[in-house]
Amino acid sequence: MEPTRVGVIGSAGVGRALAAGFASRGHEVTIGTRDPEGNEDLQAWAAQHDDVAIGSFAAAAEAGEIVVLATRGTAVEEAIQLAGPQRFAGKVVIDATNPLDFSGGGPALAIGHTDSGGEIVQRAIPEARVVKAFNTVNAGLMADPGLPDGPHPMFIAGNDEGAKATVADILSDFGWKAFDVGGIERARELESFVILWVAIGQRRGAWDHALTLVTRS
Amino acid sequence: MEPTRVGVIGSAGVGRALAAGFASRGHEVTIGTRDPEGNEDLQAWAAQHDDVAIGSFAAAAEAGEIVVLATRGTAVEEAIQLAGPQRFAGKVVIDATNPLDFSGGGPALAIGHTDSGGEIVQRAIPEARVVKAFNTVNAGLMADPGLPDGPHPMFIAGNDEGAKATVADILSDFGWKAFDVGGIERARELESFVILWVAIGQRRGAWDHALTLVTRS
Repeated sequence: MEPTRVGVIGSAGVGRALAAGFASRGHEVTIGTRDPEGNEDLQAWAAQHDDVAIGSFAAAAEAGEIVVLATRGTAVEEAIQLAGPQRFAGKVVIDATNPLDFSGGGPALAIGHTDSGGEIVQRAIPEARVVKAFNTVNAGLMADPGLPDGPHPMFIAGNDEGAKATVADILSDFGWKAFDVGGIERARELESFVILWVAIGQRRGAWDHALTLVTRS
Repeated sequence: MEPTRVGVIGSAGVGRALAAGFASRGHEVTIGTRDPEGNEDLQAWAAQHDDVAIGSFAAAAEAGEIVVLATRGTAVEEAIQLAGPQRFAGKVVIDATNPLDFSGGGPALAIGHTDSGGEIVQRAIPEARVVKAFNTVNAGLMADPGLPDGPHPMFIAGNDEGAKATVADILSDFGWKAFDVGGIERARELESFVILWVAIGQRRGAWDHALTLVTRS
């Protein structure tokens, strides 16, 4: 893309990664932080990134033709208020945040998302050992995926380790590799996943796809 | 896995695919339907799958050492009641359903899941052209993914096509291929996706992963 001015709202890991990424592609970048003078850690980082300017949230929003939101997800509304909502009008705003709630230990979504079909099933048959599986691909792929470079992961979730081991055996026989993502409450994500799977199919105009892992190492 | 008895609750596409998949691996399969005598379409299917027995929901639940739930997601509680919850006690129950609500046109989740951080941001700055992006990988991958066999898809969502085109350009420069999954309400899934991403990282003990598409064709 032609170089332009980019404002990044939020100066932790994500904000810094994206600020440096934009700067390295020739864009004029301002990274915004709540207290520009008081943020010594950010000043130390900026000393090694002299192609990135430091400013307030408002300064970053004002400077950017494109504005990136990179705060904690639960802080993004306040950050917008501090920056001034009018400074975003008409601009491309990239929202890189996630509204995560860590109060329960691991991250959960702070918004919506408090139940799932898998949990309802487990509550309806509390003595059964429920495993969410197969719900993330369509029927044509379930028993014989036939995908290149397999076996690919099938994500599963459930509360009973033995039941998950059984399902892992089944998946192996069916041409998948079980990937255990946790307790039955992770059905929230596995069920949500299928909405994304549908959206992908609609764009592709084809339905023989799955999502698989790719790793750098 | 050693052959066992499998009951499949639900006899549409998913139920049939899994019933045939289990039968082809030597398992003794009963597929359960609401009205076994009246379901002529299923009888026609079963005539070509003589290794699968037809029965009621209760018969399938009773027969299976492993029980698969493959009804419509919004019908699964009723199907469990018809089958008899006590018939699931102690068993491995594979829940392959998705609680989908088609009343709005495309599928949405019928449970939980009615808002997202992306939508909150768009409401807070209604004149801005918000694009959800970068939220599905960690900071170390955002600007220079360095993943093998790339560029891999970065899923994006937003209401403004021009803004999404701009973000697609940025992503191309950063080493990704934008994959547009729809309007800003799809941030619900992209934010949910990250919970899955975290669960995967916890199991891997490493954080240099992304989810990518794999297709049969």
